[in-house]
Amino acid sequence: MTETAATAESATTAAELEEVAAAARRAFAVTVTSTAAERAGWLRAVADALDAARDELVAIADEETHLGTTRLNGEVARTTAQLRLFADAILESSYLEATIDRPDPTTIPPRPDLRRMLRPLGPVAVFGASNFPFAFSVAGGDTASALAAGCPVIVKGHSAHARLSARTAEVVAAALSGAGAPEGIFAHVTGRETGVALVQHPEIRAVGFTGSLHGGRYLFDLAQQRPDPIPFYGELSAVNPVLITPAAIEARADELAAGLVGSFTLGAGQFCTNPGVVLVPSGSGFAERVGAAVAGASAVPMLTDGIAAAFAEGVGGLAGRADVEVVAGGPAQQPGSAAPVVLRTTTAAVLAEPGALFHECFGPSTLVVEYADVADALAAVRAVGGSLTASVHGQPGEDLAPIVEVLTEVAGRVLFAGWPTGVAVSWAQQHGGPWPSTTSIHTSVGVTAMRRFLRPVAYQDAPDAALPLELRDENGLGIPRRIDGVLTLP
Amino acid sequence: MTETAATAESATTAAELEEVAAAARRAFAVTVTSTAAERAGWLRAVADALDAARDELVAIADEETHLGTTRLNGEVARTTAQLRLFADAILESSYLEATIDRPDPTTIPPRPDLRRMLRPLGPVAVFGASNFPFAFSVAGGDTASALAAGCPVIVKGHSAHARLSARTAEVVAAALSGAGAPEGIFAHVTGRETGVALVQHPEIRAVGFTGSLHGGRYLFDLAQQRPDPIPFYGELSAVNPVLITPAAIEARADELAAGLVGSFTLGAGQFCTNPGVVLVPSGSGFAERVGAAVAGASAVPMLTDGIAAAFAEGVGGLAGRADVEVVAGGPAQQPGSAAPVVLRTTTAAVLAEPGALFHECFGPSTLVVEYADVADALAAVRAVGGSLTASVHGQPGEDLAPIVEVLTEVAGRVLFAGWPTGVAVSWAQQHGGPWPSTTSIHTSVGVTAMRRFLRPVAYQDAPDAALPLELRDENGLGIPRRIDGVLTLP
Repeated sequence: MTETAATAESATTAAELEEVAAAARRAFAVTVTSTAAERAGWLRAVADALDAARDELVAIADEETHLGTTRLNGEVARTTAQLRLFADAILESSYLEATIDRPDPTTIPPRPDLRRMLRPLGPVAVFGASNFPFAFSVAGGDTASALAAGCPVIVKGHSAHARLSARTAEVVAAALSGAGAPEGIFAHVTGRETGVALVQHPEIRAVGFTGSLHGGRYLFDLAQQRPDPIPFYGELSAVNPVLITPAAIEARADELAAGLVGSFTLGAGQFCTNPGVVLVPSGSGFAERVGAAVAGASAVPMLTDGIAAAFAEGVGGLAGRADVEVVAGGPAQQPGSAAPVVLRTTTAAVLAEPGALFHECFGPSTLVVEYADVADALAAVRAVGGSLTASVHGQPGEDLAPIVEVLTEVAGRVLFAGWPTGVAVSWAQQHGGPWPSTTSIHTSVGVTAMRRFLRPVAYQDAPDAALPLELRDENGLGIPRRIDGVLTLP
Repeated sequence: MTETAATAESATTAAELEEVAAAARRAFAVTVTSTAAERAGWLRAVADALDAARDELVAIADEETHLGTTRLNGEVARTTAQLRLFADAILESSYLEATIDRPDPTTIPPRPDLRRMLRPLGPVAVFGASNFPFAFSVAGGDTASALAAGCPVIVKGHSAHARLSARTAEVVAAALSGAGAPEGIFAHVTGRETGVALVQHPEIRAVGFTGSLHGGRYLFDLAQQRPDPIPFYGELSAVNPVLITPAAIEARADELAAGLVGSFTLGAGQFCTNPGVVLVPSGSGFAERVGAAVAGASAVPMLTDGIAAAFAEGVGGLAGRADVEVVAGGPAQQPGSAAPVVLRTTTAAVLAEPGALFHECFGPSTLVVEYADVADALAAVRAVGGSLTASVHGQPGEDLAPIVEVLTEVAGRVLFAGWPTGVAVSWAQQHGGPWPSTTSIHTSVGVTAMRRFLRPVAYQDAPDAALPLELRDENGLGIPRRIDGVLTLP
């Protein structure tokens, strides 16, 4: 077990990375044939160890991220529940898509005995995110789904919580080792250059990344430019449009304003699902209502000084435009902190210069866009482009079909009530949408996130004993399988 | 319906491509909400129309490809069976991965009502292959799977069968129109520059490609370098290693030699699943046996003069090496044709210069690699790299586990008997493997090929009436669904 290839203070060297990669490769020879029961044991051991170390880890995290212990304790609980959900899912085993076609000489071409299932890809690189020091970091969703799939993981920790990453990695490595996982199945590396080398390393078969559009695109390009391109699963940037219908504004403007404020200021707005664009009817006074609710709100420390500076710069870029009005707050912010900002514009401005108004301001800001009618609003939503989420607030009885059609087009999760922050980890979750929100047709949250780290293999005319247990004649593991086209349950 | 944007003689213009793309976009607004029953009707109408036009189409195809009417009639049957299989699969509907999570306030974060299914990506570009003028061309597997998924298709026909492509496109377009599919759902374009523009066109959401490593890599790079990268599903190049154990050679060398000859000379070797590398024990005389079987075999016309020239050049490159021996045939070939070539080398040569000996020679050649023992052979298989298929011929009772482990690592389909040519279209098929055989973790043949053209969308707290039928409380369509983590059958 490579507990950690670097301390929080020093970057991993090239030689250390080679060792870690070679160890991951050796580990893969074991994990590729590991049973679901074995891997479930590893995942649960990690979850238990993180729960046991929670107080210590949360204290470090709070020092490094300023996110507060309430949020951080909740995030640990989410992280360990996530690990246990993947353990349950691999034991259920339908994620393998086990499929058996028995021979049929009448088809063209004749069908041999074909048996297909998903198999792990190989060692996976994971880039931790700054804003979820647990749930999207060292032991977060990418790591959990890759380990569940049977892939060794090398995590590039985020420098914004370097001590936490290093300590979490020690806890994870010890738990895996104690549970009998192979040496080399997990490692933690540090340093920007190490991250670049990791994406280009021949042993790495896929990358999971959560971060900025700029950094993500850079690494995505490296992954695609390899002699052997590999999948790069990046979650990059989203403005998460929210459309409020005239009827909803009329019926419950106060409730909606309160809901929006709660969502866009949560965690100082440092969520990829932050509602960054809210479409409301012209003349509804909604922007003023939201502005009034945040007026005088205190500045909150941001994850890093760099994130705070980028937020002020992003807000400044918008606030400086003639077609954008500052309703509350503004680009003048205390260094390292951010206070809420409410901006206002119109769909006319949006449509005159599509793209100029919609870039993620990572922090507590929202842009209220006033529309003439719903068709006008939907044109603006289309101009926003791809997002993780898109929401509509309407009233009972309203025909939402035309709105849902457009929201479905631009986002991976469509909400009909509530606000997009808060991403439940479950079987039906989808966290991913059209570019630039993510780089793939898969999710990074929820059970199906495993599909990213698996590839199908079909066995043709195999002797029963040469097949994986899941594909043998006798369904000894009792898993769902498709046989001659018919899905069958154990 | 854009029946065809160009005749076989002239390339599609940029203005025509814009029209075709805009029509595809308009069609998508219809196909995205089409029912499985509607799409199944479209697919079956295309299948029926192709069957009805078979004699005419096969005559054109034979003139253009020299593949012979027996093979071509079979390929039409395969193509129409493929269309009908996708029709069956979308009616069965488990490909949608319909999943319902009911609310659970006890999870962290609390779980809302979440309902997820796969939805079509948008217009898809398909590049026809030279070597399968029906099954991997205008109405082939990429087109069938994209239409089944609900995506409009724009096919770039292959210039090696330009008249056939144009005429097939007319038949397909008329059938779709007659079956009530929306105008713009299908179009056929021509010209190399058109293909480049298609991959870069903003309306195109994914690309299906079957062709050369060189051309495929070029288009893959373009797709990834877009401002909004899109999935490029390329099937590029494979040498399809075959390992014959000492026991199998001892028991049935004649049968194996005959099987290999039948496979590598089938269709003048112009298959992506051609067994290009065969590993046998040193001193087994297997290469001589294979060479003797093809000695004096007539040259066969190739698909194009260019393919014939490339084959001669590729064989010449290998034959000119000091570590490769020509056992039968050779680089001297008649222009436009190819006669079988058998080459021989050793694992020592392979391992001394990995990669140098393994590039696809598209045509009737095979390279017999002599090994000292099975471990040595497996090292050579690893040096081959990614392939569509990998095969082992052993004897009953042999422990094939170590061999299967390596074959699974390098290929998407592992065969235990028979030869890799002939790719059945079924639920369990996997046609795709590690780079450079394909560019993705999906298949291009078989029912799951649809997954390439779908993306997940989750609906959160949606009113029942706003949901797609597949996700409403009442399972009116009677499809398989996962509810609160439990897979349920109708």
